[in-house]
Amino acid sequence: MTACLFCNIVAGKTPAQFVYQDELAVAFKDIHPKARVHLLVVPRLHVASLDDLDNTHDALMAHMIRLLPIVAREQGLANGFRTIINTGAGGGQEIAHLHLHLLGGPPLPGF
Amino acid sequence: MTACLFCNIVAGKTPAQFVYQDELAVAFKDIHPKARVHLLVVPRLHVASLDDLDNTHDALMAHMIRLLPIVAREQGLANGFRTIINTGAGGGQEIAHLHLHLLGGPPLPGF
Repeated sequence: MTACLFCNIVAGKTPAQFVYQDELAVAFKDIHPKARVHLLVVPRLHVASLDDLDNTHDALMAHMIRLLPIVAREQGLANGFRTIINTGAGGGQEIAHLHLHLLGGPPLPGF
Repeated sequence: MTACLFCNIVAGKTPAQFVYQDELAVAFKDIHPKARVHLLVVPRLHVASLDDLDNTHDALMAHMIRLLPIVAREQGLANGFRTIINTGAGGGQEIAHLHLHLLGGPPLPGF
């Protein structure tokens, strides 16, 4: 076990409800869903937040962004979905391992 | 003028309050701000939404993701920021030209 919850989930040491896995990223259900579908898309690599990205992460980030509509369609979100990325305490980030929230289906949280 | 509002803004044909511009993307103030700082980060290239990305957009998307913390810092958001990408009608997308909302400063919308 490491100190990072999402590293432990990626490693299979902490349980999660996975809906997608590949060599670079995983997607699993948020344990406190804010919508009918609420997933977290998480890189296997530990990166704390968007603040910590450099050009070595470009391929990973492009991969994760293009995963979003694929995973959304697999979840039946044919009409669309919302992606939220919280960066830092002031952005509402709660786990210091980069994660993309994917939300869909009524009720979507207000924006 | 084209039928696309954001293409017209990128081309300088429709006014906007720009805070950042480079060869691939621009950032300007949302005209209906939901937080003290509410910007839209928009590719110059017309892409309708995340649903329309393919691997030819990977470098562009990586560039835009890494722009976010740079633009956030320039806006004084030292404590963090939130990124929201709405895809499709069911995701709350209102303009069919890909855009990343960058929000920060109190009050951040609830999530």
